[in-house]
Amino acid sequence: MDLTAMRNANPDHWSKATAIRALTLDAVHAASSGHSGMPIGMADVATVLFEKHLKFDAAAPDWPDRDRFILSAGHGSMLLYSLLYLTGSSEFPLEEIKNFRQWGAKTAGHPENFLASGIETTTGPLGQGIANSVGFAIAEEAQRARFGKKVVDHHTYVIAGDGCLMEGISHEAIGLAGRLQLGKLIVLWDNNNITIDGKVDLSDCTNQVARFKAAGWQVIEIDGHDPVAIDEALTAARKSRKPSMIACKTHIALGHAAQDTSKGHGALTDPDQLQAAKDAYGWTTGPFVVPEDVKSSWEAIGTRGASARTEWEARLADLSERRRDEFNRAYALEAPKRLSATIRALKKQASEAANKVATRKSSEMVLEVVNPVMKETIGGSADLTGSNNTKTGDLGMFSPEDRKGRYIYYGIREHGMAAAMNGMVLHGGIRPYGGTFMCFTDYARPAMRLAALMRIPTVFVMTHDSIGLGEDGPTHQPVEHLAISRATPNTHVFRPADTVETAEAWELALTSKSTPSVLSLTRQGLPTVRTEHKQKNLTAQGAYVLADAEGKRQAILIATGSEVSLAMEARAMLQADGIGTRVVSMPCMELFAEQDEAYRRRVLPAGPLRVGIEAAVRQGWDRWLLGERGREAKAGFIGMDSFGASAPAEELYEKFGITAEAIVAKVKALLG
Amino acid sequence: MDLTAMRNANPDHWSKATAIRALTLDAVHAASSGHSGMPIGMADVATVLFEKHLKFDAAAPDWPDRDRFILSAGHGSMLLYSLLYLTGSSEFPLEEIKNFRQWGAKTAGHPENFLASGIETTTGPLGQGIANSVGFAIAEEAQRARFGKKVVDHHTYVIAGDGCLMEGISHEAIGLAGRLQLGKLIVLWDNNNITIDGKVDLSDCTNQVARFKAAGWQVIEIDGHDPVAIDEALTAARKSRKPSMIACKTHIALGHAAQDTSKGHGALTDPDQLQAAKDAYGWTTGPFVVPEDVKSSWEAIGTRGASARTEWEARLADLSERRRDEFNRAYALEAPKRLSATIRALKKQASEAANKVATRKSSEMVLEVVNPVMKETIGGSADLTGSNNTKTGDLGMFSPEDRKGRYIYYGIREHGMAAAMNGMVLHGGIRPYGGTFMCFTDYARPAMRLAALMRIPTVFVMTHDSIGLGEDGPTHQPVEHLAISRATPNTHVFRPADTVETAEAWELALTSKSTPSVLSLTRQGLPTVRTEHKQKNLTAQGAYVLADAEGKRQAILIATGSEVSLAMEARAMLQADGIGTRVVSMPCMELFAEQDEAYRRRVLPAGPLRVGIEAAVRQGWDRWLLGERGREAKAGFIGMDSFGASAPAEELYEKFGITAEAIVAKVKALLG
Repeated sequence: MDLTAMRNANPDHWSKATAIRALTLDAVHAASSGHSGMPIGMADVATVLFEKHLKFDAAAPDWPDRDRFILSAGHGSMLLYSLLYLTGSSEFPLEEIKNFRQWGAKTAGHPENFLASGIETTTGPLGQGIANSVGFAIAEEAQRARFGKKVVDHHTYVIAGDGCLMEGISHEAIGLAGRLQLGKLIVLWDNNNITIDGKVDLSDCTNQVARFKAAGWQVIEIDGHDPVAIDEALTAARKSRKPSMIACKTHIALGHAAQDTSKGHGALTDPDQLQAAKDAYGWTTGPFVVPEDVKSSWEAIGTRGASARTEWEARLADLSERRRDEFNRAYALEAPKRLSATIRALKKQASEAANKVATRKSSEMVLEVVNPVMKETIGGSADLTGSNNTKTGDLGMFSPEDRKGRYIYYGIREHGMAAAMNGMVLHGGIRPYGGTFMCFTDYARPAMRLAALMRIPTVFVMTHDSIGLGEDGPTHQPVEHLAISRATPNTHVFRPADTVETAEAWELALTSKSTPSVLSLTRQGLPTVRTEHKQKNLTAQGAYVLADAEGKRQAILIATGSEVSLAMEARAMLQADGIGTRVVSMPCMELFAEQDEAYRRRVLPAGPLRVGIEAAVRQGWDRWLLGERGREAKAGFIGMDSFGASAPAEELYEKFGITAEAIVAKVKALLG
Repeated sequence: MDLTAMRNANPDHWSKATAIRALTLDAVHAASSGHSGMPIGMADVATVLFEKHLKFDAAAPDWPDRDRFILSAGHGSMLLYSLLYLTGSSEFPLEEIKNFRQWGAKTAGHPENFLASGIETTTGPLGQGIANSVGFAIAEEAQRARFGKKVVDHHTYVIAGDGCLMEGISHEAIGLAGRLQLGKLIVLWDNNNITIDGKVDLSDCTNQVARFKAAGWQVIEIDGHDPVAIDEALTAARKSRKPSMIACKTHIALGHAAQDTSKGHGALTDPDQLQAAKDAYGWTTGPFVVPEDVKSSWEAIGTRGASARTEWEARLADLSERRRDEFNRAYALEAPKRLSATIRALKKQASEAANKVATRKSSEMVLEVVNPVMKETIGGSADLTGSNNTKTGDLGMFSPEDRKGRYIYYGIREHGMAAAMNGMVLHGGIRPYGGTFMCFTDYARPAMRLAALMRIPTVFVMTHDSIGLGEDGPTHQPVEHLAISRATPNTHVFRPADTVETAEAWELALTSKSTPSVLSLTRQGLPTVRTEHKQKNLTAQGAYVLADAEGKRQAILIATGSEVSLAMEARAMLQADGIGTRVVSMPCMELFAEQDEAYRRRVLPAGPLRVGIEAAVRQGWDRWLLGERGREAKAGFIGMDSFGASAPAEELYEKFGITAEAIVAKVKALLG
């Protein structure tokens, strides 16, 4: 590449783009760690995007109607941090750039949304950003349909690399975006032909242009270093009714000795090569120094959207108070006032009716009353709508023809669904929930982890949560999946025992602001165990005494979900034999762990033996069975220690020994 | 569809295909459960495939040179079971068909490879079969290159549905197959335009033909009910140098009232509709009865390959004894005799050198000596070759130009890699291993679970296994992933402490016949803790006393991997303070759990307090800390209870309190 010619052709552009390149080189050098090549290669694209297209106001990074900029290729985080610093973000002073990748810095190795405004999502695990962006674009369409173009009208821009496009999740994301015709989604592909291992063709020969077209996208191919071409492509993309992919042919680590090599992907720290690159750029200031004129032209970009933002605020103020409050409430993740009463009414009704209901059906009953009072919900399922019971009467189907529809047919795309839901929450104004079989949390797992890490309240509706699924067999029967979700920090795993607990779990999930929820629900019918109505949300305490011992308390049975009624049966048998038995229902271990010690002691006093009952592996249970510091109780567990099998559900419970009789036998054996 | 015309046009074909349809209807009716529509819709394709193309001998279902038939759309399991019964498999008498989806039957809800020969892989979780098939086809190419076309020359046929093709993993699979130009891989797409939720266009408008072409495949479009067209397409596919996709336009549940509807996808059990469908087929025998002439024509198909098989046996016998033994040994998953001595020599050398080495590097040292003596290994990485240290000097790159190459650049495709490796093991003759970061076990998780369920010894090389990864931050730092793999039944999770344990772990992984291994390896350098050479593989016991207490034994420190040396440091400090401290290294919890109680008691005697140390969540540890039945010991844990952070590794260990000083403080606090 003739850098001098590039510089001379567009000197103002060049100096702005080079500021990104120089900051990247300096920050990676200081950290001795990071990824230099991508920010250097995509600096031209990002500069034109920010200068001429991206609607934002650096002084108001949380402005709801800003365009969203998503760095799916999160390893190139210095691109984003450079842009935030250059445009004048108050959260990214130069010190942050100098502290790249250090303890306590907002400039973490990969962008982390929860560290600062201006970072829309957490990326790094490849493909997640592009899949989030589908959710951002859905949220924009849904909110625009609801609140009008005057207050919601923005684009979602994504920078994605070859890694993002090779990951399977990208297939799910682009297929969904193509089907939903998300015209305001624009993906900029950093087509640099390099991965960590070498040239892309070591592992891939996919024609990405043909691939995106096959999925219903508009595709534009450009030289990613030509600012005029970049500008024209973005203008064309903004006019498209289809989602757009702009294939930007770039040189990774442009101008550095490592240009166009896989070495250029990583940390370029050699000081001589660094200086040589800066010389080639015509960049003469010292480390971390951006010439004043360049900095101020970037800061002008940062304030470019200020008037649009104040005009938007006036338009928001023009909405009726009711609509404005509704808009702001959903953005603040506040539940509507009626939610609590709605849930209580359903609980009362369920306690009185005391029907036998599968908790997936209980969940539908909750959604039937919640969706009408909580208009920010968007439901969906990965092609198991009738099984997950996620669609309620009033939702309608979200489609190009009906952007007010609130139900998404995600297709057989568990991972893409989970990541899109994350994107909707991150966008703001939407509470998404989506269903699949509990066993297929496996497919959605990387996005579920990110929801937890990102501190967002995405709701995962996971039905068919044990061998109770029956004939479909072990490929579809979770045994380790409760343990998996519970092992993940900042995740609430709810396994409700009946309709009442299901309603309580949903209330907690829908009022959470920073923790995702996994609802573990049965295929099979369960008797109502909460037959006495209580206003209070007992599930909020994580575990509680469902039935206490009569006489001397010799045993405590701790159970979740479908096994709570088994514990109640076993209790009746034990009491008949004179063995005083308490039953503790434990719908959420994480919330129980958060209770104060006095409460935990009241529910699980030291002394009586304990038996845990859950049709799943024991891992995660010992803390409650053996006591947090040990020495508390003799204990046993009734559950699974292998994969399941294919047979009718009731037979499986018998064969795997998860029965009231087995519980009784275990208690008696422990009593000796 | 005019079924009468179809029947009259090809009466012999029709009766054979209809046998599949009728058996499917009867079996699903008897089970009141299952999926009728797909076997009915794809019966024509399967009949032509088995009659005219598939090389197999029903009497020898494990014949190594058979063509492989993979039912990726595993819910249509009755298609496979019907074919096995009809062609005369001794493992699938009519009783099995009658017991479809019942306890103990080989006819499980979804095909399970470990229940019977003739089932090549376990499918049901969508997309897995097509991704396995890439591994099958790689294995065929690799073995053909090694042993010659006379003993290895077969095709891999796959039936996949829309579900398989929507899953992200299919993108990874077809991209890899396209790049590797696996011409003997032939995918038959059941293009019926129906998913569970409704018509495909509810959720997808992808042009699959264009998509496969974009990935480098040959595509042929046919009427999937026309036996002549099916035959011609298969003939053309078999000649292709590219992998082939045959788009078979079909009618789900052909001839049934539910034809072409999503209802047709599931269990069609209405007896009147069932009879009406049989009437429309012209099928007049009672339930489960296949007319004798039809059955015998199917059985003739089952013996069609018998002579080819005996000729093949003669050709195998023609190989030199050394080559034949090598072929058979690898198929039997027997390790070469030299493996054990090779590992021992490396251990001795490592103990003597006592270097500080990252265990990912230790792993490379092992592979450098193992790969030359174990020619059935095929290594690879999901674009992290230099980080995972998975490529050794002698492997070469597997490519269309070099089928003897034993290293695969999988690209950024963790899930596709894992599933392809599973396919290679299932094919036979290959021991694959593949690497990514431990955190990205999340991406590979559905295939890792299936390896465990399928009882196959796939090896997952997972490096950068804790916050020791450093600056890349929490998106790349596993904290729950050891717990996740340990929660999964039939999985060995090895977390070796140094080069010696790494060599022992590899020996166990490479000699396993029915259990997958996860090798959890560090980025950061670790001192050698096994400085005294022992011939015996101590890791095989799961845990062992690395250093015993001097004086009265007051504390036992149990640690894994990178934390073992911390435990040793803490022990020195505690002993200096007169506190007798034992250190137990626990590289594999699962193997320790398998030891007899006497051994476990010797390693972890009741009495002394216990502290577990692992830079990960506590879940899974309590069994060892608190005692299996409780009441054994006071206990504590030093590890993580949150996600990590972005900073240099040593600083993270300090900040998260995983230090020798913290261990000492914990022991002293527990001693009170």
